[in-house]
Amino acid sequence: MDAKLINPFINSAMNVITTMAFTEVTPGKPGIKTTKTTYGSVTGIIGLVSATYTGNMILSFEEKAILSIVSKMLCEEFAEVNKDVVDAVGELTNMISGGAKAELSQEGYTFDMATPAMIVGKNVDISQLTSVPIIVIPFTTDTGSFVVEASIQKKG
Amino acid sequence: MDAKLINPFINSAMNVITTMAFTEVTPGKPGIKTTKTTYGSVTGIIGLVSATYTGNMILSFEEKAILSIVSKMLCEEFAEVNKDVVDAVGELTNMISGGAKAELSQEGYTFDMATPAMIVGKNVDISQLTSVPIIVIPFTTDTGSFVVEASIQKKG
Repeated sequence: MDAKLINPFINSAMNVITTMAFTEVTPGKPGIKTTKTTYGSVTGIIGLVSATYTGNMILSFEEKAILSIVSKMLCEEFAEVNKDVVDAVGELTNMISGGAKAELSQEGYTFDMATPAMIVGKNVDISQLTSVPIIVIPFTTDTGSFVVEASIQKKG
Repeated sequence: MDAKLINPFINSAMNVITTMAFTEVTPGKPGIKTTKTTYGSVTGIIGLVSATYTGNMILSFEEKAILSIVSKMLCEEFAEVNKDVVDAVGELTNMISGGAKAELSQEGYTFDMATPAMIVGKNVDISQLTSVPIIVIPFTTDTGSFVVEASIQKKG
């Protein structure tokens, strides 16, 4: 994946989590995904697609991190992963991919977003039918970590 | 979801499995998905999207059914779910959604397809951030069953 595709996902994740959940976010060094499992306890996946490009963005939170983020987003204390928390991960998946889409369109990469699906469970076996590496961007907050995984390829 | 959106998925699933795996397929009565888990042991999910529509198609096989189908597709005996089997589910997800896309475009519903993601595990907790019901179409083969789940909504 083109390296200049990575920054829009970093910027958007930081912007969305900071704005929606008043939570400081520190990005780590992007790498290549080598595992075939979900990173955290709640994971959103959204298809990114246009006539030219196809891919997915995955957003996956450690349980402590997402409980704190959703508690701040919805001004209500969440102590366990329930439907509201899972739906919030879907909304965050929409917002972060939407922010990246806006920035990427300025680079000439245009795509639309599909409907987010949310998976509950750490280490769920998930892989993608893609020939390009999947980029993993780690983020830390004061209550735990999350990752954004992005893969976009030109259609064959 | 508009009822006339359902037949293209039925036709495409029967056509792809019959053609690729020489396997007779009997469709059952479509219904509304009421569970929030994967149906079978190997599941493919693919985003469907255009400027007007957004959704996902999910394809989920009982283990016995997919082992038999992939064994016939690849002319090699598969006794357990390995990378080849998982990738084959991704390919079938691509092919079935592609066939439905072609038929749906004649009805005026046009969309592009994202990259398939594959989840291994029965009863994995998966939901979608959508306001429309998810249609479930059951299919049986002589070695087990599978389902196609489809949800397409007009963008808000």
